[in-house]
Amino acid sequence: MPRAKRFLGLLLPRDGSGTGNGDDGGWSMRPMDAEQLRECGHRMVDFIADYYKSIETFSVLSQVQPGYLNELLPDSAPNRPDTLDALFDVTHWQSPNYFAYYPSDSSTAGFLGEMLSAAFNIVGFSWITSPAATELEVIVLDWFAKMLKLPSQFLSSAVGGVIQGSASEAVLVVLLAARDRTLEMHGKKSLEKLVVYASDQTHSALQKACQIAGIFPENFRLVKADYSNSYAVAPEAVSEAISVDLSSGLIPFFICATVGTTSSSAVDPLHKLGKIAQAHDMWFHIDAAYAGSACVCAEYRHHLDGVEEADSFNMNAHKWFLTNFDCSLLWVKDKSYLIEALSTNPEYLKNKASQENSVVDFKDWQIPLGRRFRSLKLWMVLRLYGVENLQSYIRKHIQLAKQFEQLVLSDSRFEVVTQRNFSLVCFRLLPPTSEDDNGRNLNYSLMDTCNSSGKIFISHTVLSGKFVLRFAVGAPLTEEKHVDAAWKLLQDEASKILGSL
Amino acid sequence: MPRAKRFLGLLLPRDGSGTGNGDDGGWSMRPMDAEQLRECGHRMVDFIADYYKSIETFSVLSQVQPGYLNELLPDSAPNRPDTLDALFDVTHWQSPNYFAYYPSDSSTAGFLGEMLSAAFNIVGFSWITSPAATELEVIVLDWFAKMLKLPSQFLSSAVGGVIQGSASEAVLVVLLAARDRTLEMHGKKSLEKLVVYASDQTHSALQKACQIAGIFPENFRLVKADYSNSYAVAPEAVSEAISVDLSSGLIPFFICATVGTTSSSAVDPLHKLGKIAQAHDMWFHIDAAYAGSACVCAEYRHHLDGVEEADSFNMNAHKWFLTNFDCSLLWVKDKSYLIEALSTNPEYLKNKASQENSVVDFKDWQIPLGRRFRSLKLWMVLRLYGVENLQSYIRKHIQLAKQFEQLVLSDSRFEVVTQRNFSLVCFRLLPPTSEDDNGRNLNYSLMDTCNSSGKIFISHTVLSGKFVLRFAVGAPLTEEKHVDAAWKLLQDEASKILGSL
Repeated sequence: MPRAKRFLGLLLPRDGSGTGNGDDGGWSMRPMDAEQLRECGHRMVDFIADYYKSIETFSVLSQVQPGYLNELLPDSAPNRPDTLDALFDVTHWQSPNYFAYYPSDSSTAGFLGEMLSAAFNIVGFSWITSPAATELEVIVLDWFAKMLKLPSQFLSSAVGGVIQGSASEAVLVVLLAARDRTLEMHGKKSLEKLVVYASDQTHSALQKACQIAGIFPENFRLVKADYSNSYAVAPEAVSEAISVDLSSGLIPFFICATVGTTSSSAVDPLHKLGKIAQAHDMWFHIDAAYAGSACVCAEYRHHLDGVEEADSFNMNAHKWFLTNFDCSLLWVKDKSYLIEALSTNPEYLKNKASQENSVVDFKDWQIPLGRRFRSLKLWMVLRLYGVENLQSYIRKHIQLAKQFEQLVLSDSRFEVVTQRNFSLVCFRLLPPTSEDDNGRNLNYSLMDTCNSSGKIFISHTVLSGKFVLRFAVGAPLTEEKHVDAAWKLLQDEASKILGSL
Repeated sequence: MPRAKRFLGLLLPRDGSGTGNGDDGGWSMRPMDAEQLRECGHRMVDFIADYYKSIETFSVLSQVQPGYLNELLPDSAPNRPDTLDALFDVTHWQSPNYFAYYPSDSSTAGFLGEMLSAAFNIVGFSWITSPAATELEVIVLDWFAKMLKLPSQFLSSAVGGVIQGSASEAVLVVLLAARDRTLEMHGKKSLEKLVVYASDQTHSALQKACQIAGIFPENFRLVKADYSNSYAVAPEAVSEAISVDLSSGLIPFFICATVGTTSSSAVDPLHKLGKIAQAHDMWFHIDAAYAGSACVCAEYRHHLDGVEEADSFNMNAHKWFLTNFDCSLLWVKDKSYLIEALSTNPEYLKNKASQENSVVDFKDWQIPLGRRFRSLKLWMVLRLYGVENLQSYIRKHIQLAKQFEQLVLSDSRFEVVTQRNFSLVCFRLLPPTSEDDNGRNLNYSLMDTCNSSGKIFISHTVLSGKFVLRFAVGAPLTEEKHVDAAWKLLQDEASKILGSL
């Protein structure tokens, strides 16, 4: 385990030439001195490599109680260096025993990209504030679009893509573009009539985007998706909801489909939803935040069939594609409404390149003004690993998920709850007939016991009223042995719980 | 200068044990192998230290033309490593000769924090997803609030602060909180009546926030600030605008004041604006994105007098406070409206700690769901430099700005256009009487010539119709000699331009 106790001491430069506050052991205030950076940077690299070497010795899920850190740190910034020990009570998302939510993968390539981006520390709001940052972003988004075989309308020769911080921001900016496009036709006061449609399996980011955009809560239609369709939404149900709303004088304007829902990785029927959207002149957005990564493999690409109908498409390279958080890729077919909704043009940001309309200024494609050089890490991942390696990486995780699924199927005390599409297995311990909460307490206890052991971290959802455990494979260090060990832990704890009933 | 040409080659691990695509020279697909990370990380540290050592040899403002990178990189992800040369056409924000916009400072401490944050690569949306990330954020925001002597209502014992990505997001989330608070009182359909007030010197982020929140453009009041008040807004003018709107049946609900405006670092009268807001039950937000840093020095703290009247207060540690971008600090007096506007509570994110209300879940205080471990870098800056060093750092830059101001004043061909409050000097070359555009072309040419030389980068604004040059000191490596050299360049180019008239 890293010698966290000595961490801050280790970071102090050896020269002792500090102009500091006297009791800092020699840390000097030369905030960007190249040699100090070199010396401390090397120590930090070793510290981080040691962390990865020993990552399995940490509890995946920190076992601390709320407020723990307040007890350990002083009330105000102290004068003396202290330890970093307390800060290791993070949840170790990079642990090979992490199977919760969806993954958030780090990689050496992504890490190097983050280092270089932090070193340049540019704020690339306009082309002029860093030409390479803007242009590299355009180019790697094109590369990625080609890997995903997105239609040519999403390439920069037509419009192109942009890196957002998260899928939440991606869906928000396109919802705003769609809102303003619709209000332009129907008048600003029509806001109260605007209706959004999605499956009830859609990520909560859409609800949040609606709240922010001022969509009336009663006009946010979550159409029920159920077991019979493996939790994909039925297009007929969406159509019907639209008809009802139209007959009430409302204005349907936005459909969001998901490829790989958060609860169970369900895939909505893109083509049919796209056609419905077109028929009613609605914006059609596709959220493939998690499963988009799998679609770089030929055998999974069919899940994107119908993407050609979309107005916008989003996937997170920061989930399962080894690009450190944050890096969410968004493509749009028409940038004009996006820019109309989000642009401002103050005098102090004007410059020749922007005024001549010869460049892309990504500030007008996103919520914030400032932006980091995020394309660097994606570029590193693509260049240093290459497409074939990345495909193998995805396939390996899906293979591990299949392995876990087989293990669950082989134990009659458990059930696999719905179809596995990618690297997520939804399962649960079957409740004895005496249980009257349909296994909620039973499975909650199983999850809680396993997570509290610090040996694995899994999370849950509810599907058709069933409390369901989620086992999402995707951490960069996960191997067969970790999946086997996780399953053994689940079995052992299940035996104990069932035995005590 | 770094041997950028060999960069990608240098990153390849020496072991040659690649399972890669065969022609990558041995880069292996072990995405988080500790020893590969160590080896490549050390090389990247050296590369970055070399970059800083030679940073002055680069053109501050890249001299490339739009589309340059497209010519240099292939159409789709290639198989062979190539050079990083092309990616150095960034704008070198960390160059000591960077004086444009406002600074975006890197530091060794901030860089180490970014490294560690990228290494953990957690996604801290809820407390449970990384206890240390949430708790450290609460604690360092308290430390910072105490450094700024913010009223106790902004401390975590009352409500506390949160790290946003940017001042744009900070003003957006509080505008949404204020919007929803007001709509709760007046009904959702009152949106069209809601009015926002600010000086016409306010950052365009407020306009963007209004567009996103659906505030009607005709209800966005920019009150003119002029030379007589050094471009601070006159509270009487704001009062008057509110009275007019009230008598028209509109609903004034939000005032935004600025400490250190973008154009000229003007300071709005906080106390009086706060009182006006209170009298009308309006939300009062203070944007101190740039100048907040200076207020950690006792002699500048008076610029925050009146902050006790604010509902929310924002400053960017990522501008002038050595904390790598992004790190924007927001404090609110009442979190309930923020959370009401931004929270969602899907099943798959529920957990014991959140359900028991014993923890802060920062996902409900911001636009996106996911969030990086940004408090680490701020913690590093505070712990490794200490308050006194940081105060000296700020004072040094203000001293350098004073030096530049004196140089401008000593040359009668130039004028200082408005009061200097912090480290920004607004100046211009006086136009000969024959010029009929009030010096616009003259000063544009001066700026363009200097920037095109690659020796410095400055930016501009317009104040009372005058085209004004901005000289903002704040890059971490800037010393007296850089200011002197910049002034000499400006003088020399001015002589040439005036001579050719």
